[in-house]
Amino acid sequence: MRLGIIGLGRMGGNMRDRLRDAGHEVVGYDRDPAVSDVASLAELVDRLDAPRAVWTMVPVTVTFSVIEELCDLLAPGDLVIDGGNSRFTDDTPRAERLARHDIGYLDVGVSGGVWGRENGYGLMVGGDADHVRRMMPIFEALKPAGEYGFVHAGPVGAGHFAKMVHNGVEYALMHAYAEGYELMSRAELITDVPGVIKSWREGTVVRSWLLDLLDAALDEDPGLAALRGYADDTGEGRWTVEEAIKLGVPMNVIAASLFARFTSRQEDSPAMKAVAALRNQFGGHAVQSSP
Amino acid sequence: MRLGIIGLGRMGGNMRDRLRDAGHEVVGYDRDPAVSDVASLAELVDRLDAPRAVWTMVPVTVTFSVIEELCDLLAPGDLVIDGGNSRFTDDTPRAERLARHDIGYLDVGVSGGVWGRENGYGLMVGGDADHVRRMMPIFEALKPAGEYGFVHAGPVGAGHFAKMVHNGVEYALMHAYAEGYELMSRAELITDVPGVIKSWREGTVVRSWLLDLLDAALDEDPGLAALRGYADDTGEGRWTVEEAIKLGVPMNVIAASLFARFTSRQEDSPAMKAVAALRNQFGGHAVQSSP
Repeated sequence: MRLGIIGLGRMGGNMRDRLRDAGHEVVGYDRDPAVSDVASLAELVDRLDAPRAVWTMVPVTVTFSVIEELCDLLAPGDLVIDGGNSRFTDDTPRAERLARHDIGYLDVGVSGGVWGRENGYGLMVGGDADHVRRMMPIFEALKPAGEYGFVHAGPVGAGHFAKMVHNGVEYALMHAYAEGYELMSRAELITDVPGVIKSWREGTVVRSWLLDLLDAALDEDPGLAALRGYADDTGEGRWTVEEAIKLGVPMNVIAASLFARFTSRQEDSPAMKAVAALRNQFGGHAVQSSP
Repeated sequence: MRLGIIGLGRMGGNMRDRLRDAGHEVVGYDRDPAVSDVASLAELVDRLDAPRAVWTMVPVTVTFSVIEELCDLLAPGDLVIDGGNSRFTDDTPRAERLARHDIGYLDVGVSGGVWGRENGYGLMVGGDADHVRRMMPIFEALKPAGEYGFVHAGPVGAGHFAKMVHNGVEYALMHAYAEGYELMSRAELITDVPGVIKSWREGTVVRSWLLDLLDAALDEDPGLAALRGYADDTGEGRWTVEEAIKLGVPMNVIAASLFARFTSRQEDSPAMKAVAALRNQFGGHAVQSSP
């Protein structure tokens, strides 16, 4: 089928390629003319036949303004699919905005990163069943071969909610391996830490794709000497913990992995300054001066 | 080659089968005559040619007494391999005990559970390089096909240390999925929680063998209604956190997953009684009486 994609960065561009390989006609728009198929959003809409389907794959900060533009350009019966890393709470307002123009909306959590082009993308979809049915040829082409990698998780918002939880789980999985890595690195007994990580890739209970990536990183740099122990976050971990707080769900492990990222970004720790100050106050324990 | 295995339970029995399939001659001894190839440890030793190799696969509580018996039965140049879930701190005393009889010792962390018979076992080995070299035909037959699933991690103790960390990591991996599962189960937006878990099996960053097992469990019982939220532990998680404490390694995520298991085993929580008491003391907040 014919699809418009707005945003041809690392994700959108690769998705366009994967869809074209599967025989779909994709018209892509990007602000960068070097990668764009058309000069404007209006031209992209012109190149599609009604009822149109337009997939937005833009930074979340501009998704709302793109949807505003699409309200004017699209026609009743058209469908907008957002595959960006939006917060699920933004989905219902968008769907309602589009619905005033009789335009449908699906939210899709897309996983797979730069490997998705080749392996397929994990897709978590929220929205009406008839909209999902209409887009199934596109979903089938984007998802990995086989029975996994796609779910219609619920109504509008459910796709991004599932993706948010996926990313929260991802934080803790990464941190579990990381803590094991650090402990082995500090233990004199283990003389081949990268070898242990590599051995875990088959036959063990902890084998996973993330472990494969850790092994690949250690192949490149066995002591990770080139990296500083610093990790950013793009929001999904925070949203997951915020949602756990809202629903009263215990989330010790994911929260700990999120907070460890915050700690990694501090030059110095005000909390540990306070601990040092208190130890000094009541016990006269030695403190270290600020450099 | 010829190998003696002591202990033919779920693990040892399956390993015997896998080794025989690979063409090795295995003599197995178990206290249960229904599965044992010989009537006694002495007969097992008689059936092997010097230099002998004997693999112990017994509950850790009896490993030391089995090794005591082997000190008397084996001859200089023989080799004992322990594949049980021993604590790594027990390995050096065992190795020293056996060394007084000029008997060698290897410790092997074995992962893979009931699936190892078919998929192969992940093996983490500690001990001298010449002992490892001697046993490579056995390790090759037990490990999964391909380049992964085996490591000579370091000197005596390193195999069980690596396996201990593997299991500690496993606790936190399990808990990461579990927290995501609970959050989605509590969120009305997700109408197909088992479907989301299933979708994650391909194309996503969180795909793993443990996730496959969670999907299998949800296939059998979509709401896990038949299970109580209770989890035992067999020690490796505790040892991992104890070792982190000894070496001063931060281990927030693995420790949280271990403590969550302890919490799951409490009928009622003395700590939460104390919190309730204090809230009542200073704020007059409502408390619930013990049933």
